[in-house]
Amino acid sequence: MTKSPPLFGKISLIGAGLIGSSIAQAARRANLAGHIAAYVPRAETRARAERIGFADSLHDELPPAIENADLVVLATPVSAYAELARAMAPHLKQGAILTDVGSVKSAVIKDVAPLVPKGVHFIPGHPVAGTEQSGPEAGFAELFDGRWCILTPPPDSNAQAVEKLKEFWRRCGSDVEIMDATHHDRVLAITSHVPHLIAYNIVGTAADLETVTQSEVIKYSASGFRDFTRIAASDPTMWRDIFLNNRDAVLEMLGRFNEDLAALQRAVRWGDGDALFNLFTRTRAIRRSIIEAGQDTAEPNFGRQPRDKTKT
Amino acid sequence: MTKSPPLFGKISLIGAGLIGSSIAQAARRANLAGHIAAYVPRAETRARAERIGFADSLHDELPPAIENADLVVLATPVSAYAELARAMAPHLKQGAILTDVGSVKSAVIKDVAPLVPKGVHFIPGHPVAGTEQSGPEAGFAELFDGRWCILTPPPDSNAQAVEKLKEFWRRCGSDVEIMDATHHDRVLAITSHVPHLIAYNIVGTAADLETVTQSEVIKYSASGFRDFTRIAASDPTMWRDIFLNNRDAVLEMLGRFNEDLAALQRAVRWGDGDALFNLFTRTRAIRRSIIEAGQDTAEPNFGRQPRDKTKT
Repeated sequence: MTKSPPLFGKISLIGAGLIGSSIAQAARRANLAGHIAAYVPRAETRARAERIGFADSLHDELPPAIENADLVVLATPVSAYAELARAMAPHLKQGAILTDVGSVKSAVIKDVAPLVPKGVHFIPGHPVAGTEQSGPEAGFAELFDGRWCILTPPPDSNAQAVEKLKEFWRRCGSDVEIMDATHHDRVLAITSHVPHLIAYNIVGTAADLETVTQSEVIKYSASGFRDFTRIAASDPTMWRDIFLNNRDAVLEMLGRFNEDLAALQRAVRWGDGDALFNLFTRTRAIRRSIIEAGQDTAEPNFGRQPRDKTKT
Repeated sequence: MTKSPPLFGKISLIGAGLIGSSIAQAARRANLAGHIAAYVPRAETRARAERIGFADSLHDELPPAIENADLVVLATPVSAYAELARAMAPHLKQGAILTDVGSVKSAVIKDVAPLVPKGVHFIPGHPVAGTEQSGPEAGFAELFDGRWCILTPPPDSNAQAVEKLKEFWRRCGSDVEIMDATHHDRVLAITSHVPHLIAYNIVGTAADLETVTQSEVIKYSASGFRDFTRIAASDPTMWRDIFLNNRDAVLEMLGRFNEDLAALQRAVRWGDGDALFNLFTRTRAIRRSIIEAGQDTAEPNFGRQPRDKTKT
């Protein structure tokens, strides 16, 4: 049996963080690229990327990184996209696919689409996968396995290019969904952005108390708080950019959250046990659905290992 | 080498849920009881407890369950404590220790202390450990390993009895801390109760949206939301009782949370990237401290296993 040719001749990754390096490793695993190039302007990050060796070539300048690339993937914080797109435009190959991995999509289309040359297929994307860690070392080939990747192609997109990008993500291990960018931003506001915002917020609140010390918060965090700190340890630059670029949807969902929290606060104040019990029963069912959909483990405490006794 | 005698002659567990059954298993592991009795009034739960076999005797009536017991542990939702204490009072042995495992302490002292007979040592306790699962089958001997157990003995408590209960929890695997009940309730309000309240709340908000379907929320939950659903799957009765019995501290901490969230919401609305970035950087440090203190795993995504490809 002869090995089939790779899906793309050359893939160019703009950025070498958790997502960029995971894409490189997933693409290698599935033989999706003849050559993987990465643009990593910072010398220190480039040295770290080199040590891991996930790309065939690392570049400190854009033109050689994207020259002749069949697929270019923006994988930096979204605030850098516009400048990068402007710098890339003259060097993109005709017929190339330009995509990204940002967690917001309407703002990305507004920023990037006008800068993309005719004959280059711009198909925004968002692999809904990640960990709280960042940097080239955080990446791994299995990150996208069984996770969803959402593509938000503008209405006039080239169908063949969309199909090819779908195939790319499927071979990276993902299920692919096509969605309107505005709808994507609403869905992610409630499933990701607002949860991150309130996690960051409660961790900040806990840190600022005078009546409870920070060391007490840390000692007793296994009672719930520690779960929030994982999310609140996510990359600050990436998350700043998400909130700056999905303002309307985040504020809409946060408005709902606040309304509901006011009602819940009232139930606590007035001792309305039935209201509390009913909500707490309803939310249990959603956990079950997420486990059944294969989007989380059924293991208690996420399957965390009990603390090693030798460490006590 | 002769085996040393157990710490207590007879331990009596009132309730056979996650905590009760874990105590029985931890006590057996460390040879802490000559006999473990459990009061499990519901026939269906008693049958399940019998199948697992964690107790030496299971009882549908209180008096034989606690007769001659040296340590009696209330391990039911806290709303049941007062009635149980009233029923137990005439049957408690002189010199016995009566403790509990409830997540609130001031209300428990107010409810139970007046009902405890002279000569019985009432020492309220709270093992800060658990999972989102409930019922006898959810228990396991390692639950308390490396976790904290907080005792809140009233000022006039018998020092020997307090020392003996501390020793019990240490041999169950815990580190033990003595704390004032009011302070305990504040600490737990911020580390546990408010986090649970906002987790329940966001899961409820997500379920009620019209613009985003429940199936979308489930599909894309790996982007943050799923972490909250674990906590929001905790036992509804237990959590209703916690909020009804720690109202003041919960409302105090929730007031702080709301104040901070209003400021954060304003930062999003006005595009104050610096304020967002600063908070997101500060919260990262707390995660590190929790990992260093051995209260959570450093593994990305809590060490969850990537989804099994065969399931896709």
